[in-house]
Amino acid sequence: MWNATVLSLFPEMFPGTLDFSIAGKALRKNLWSLKTVNIRQFSNNKNGKVDEVPFGGGPGMVINPEVLDKALKFVAKAVGRRIYLTPRGKKFDQEFAKKLSQEKGAVFICGRYEGVDERFLIHNEIEEVSVGDFVLSGGEIGAQLIMDATIRLIPEVIGNAAGLVDESFERHLLEYPLYTHPRVWKDMEVPEVLLSGNHKKIQMWKLKMSEKLTKSRRPDLWSKYIKS
Amino acid sequence: MWNATVLSLFPEMFPGTLDFSIAGKALRKNLWSLKTVNIRQFSNNKNGKVDEVPFGGGPGMVINPEVLDKALKFVAKAVGRRIYLTPRGKKFDQEFAKKLSQEKGAVFICGRYEGVDERFLIHNEIEEVSVGDFVLSGGEIGAQLIMDATIRLIPEVIGNAAGLVDESFERHLLEYPLYTHPRVWKDMEVPEVLLSGNHKKIQMWKLKMSEKLTKSRRPDLWSKYIKS
Repeated sequence: MWNATVLSLFPEMFPGTLDFSIAGKALRKNLWSLKTVNIRQFSNNKNGKVDEVPFGGGPGMVINPEVLDKALKFVAKAVGRRIYLTPRGKKFDQEFAKKLSQEKGAVFICGRYEGVDERFLIHNEIEEVSVGDFVLSGGEIGAQLIMDATIRLIPEVIGNAAGLVDESFERHLLEYPLYTHPRVWKDMEVPEVLLSGNHKKIQMWKLKMSEKLTKSRRPDLWSKYIKS
Repeated sequence: MWNATVLSLFPEMFPGTLDFSIAGKALRKNLWSLKTVNIRQFSNNKNGKVDEVPFGGGPGMVINPEVLDKALKFVAKAVGRRIYLTPRGKKFDQEFAKKLSQEKGAVFICGRYEGVDERFLIHNEIEEVSVGDFVLSGGEIGAQLIMDATIRLIPEVIGNAAGLVDESFERHLLEYPLYTHPRVWKDMEVPEVLLSGNHKKIQMWKLKMSEKLTKSRRPDLWSKYIKS
């Protein structure tokens, strides 16, 4: 079983989107587990305050290192890497998801407000991970995103493992266009080759379309593809 | 008011993470609105089936173009761009969020299963947007992510607009390290300059740290920064 542990100021956000569809079914089948811990319970303060003004001024508040450290100690037995969601981190991608799905789980530390005290990250050798070049109001959506991408790669979660082979980023290519019924819709026909029954031709068409799409939309991926 | 419209097979996922903290407060203050529509209600089928096998074979199921088209017509009066969440799309980033926050809203079309029929996207000139190089089990998390990044940039949502100036990706730089109380923690001191009260020196330190971090962690951003 893959074990997710989440430290958050908003544990009510979980399982959230992960309670439905593929991840939700897998949760109920015990293919993965979810434990959430409210960071606020480790506040030293009667009012449950966890954040303070940053030294040197600047906007927003910073989460106190001691509070976070206590929260992390509380889940000391939790398996997996310690991941802090931050736009400063290493970019999360499909390869990352694949590796993570082969590990035993992960601990997700979700910041809010401006961020967390740098020393907490250094002292605990926390892995900083980013889901993209944008700023979110907290780490929770990023944590759900990483979990969703990872959980669907756990063996047995998606019945047909072959379903994972064709998709985007396998072989550094974007996925080819998809067509289903009806054969003609709004005067647009399904490409003839897809109706041909010629498996080899179909595979060639799919590859060609993937290459074309990747080349025009993602020159960065394209250069990885032609190198590999 | 910024208006979000969501077409999804799992409308129960919303507002989800957006019901809390910054986005949740803003929702209750009517700074943005959320309308969800269940795609399944437009099925032609008694059992509510919306997906069919792809022509040309391959794993997974594809959402029928007619069903999606009806769902989109149902929200024809909704304001804003029509965004389909897909790893094949244009990358969402902070600049995208900023622009979107200045528009009237957006319509988010969330796929599930393998994807949607290509002709639906072409016929309706749908904008394909990606939140990153990974595969999720549906578009819902990506939609919440885009909304969260966008909503926090709407004027009045975050009280102190100055709070948005220093953060990551403004000026193509990652954010500098943050420190709060206590002054010494686990033998690590807050950098002296941050305690100096010298505003100019502090700003210089922050910039230097941001530059150092960006240069070492994100050569791609760094090259954009030195060009600008």
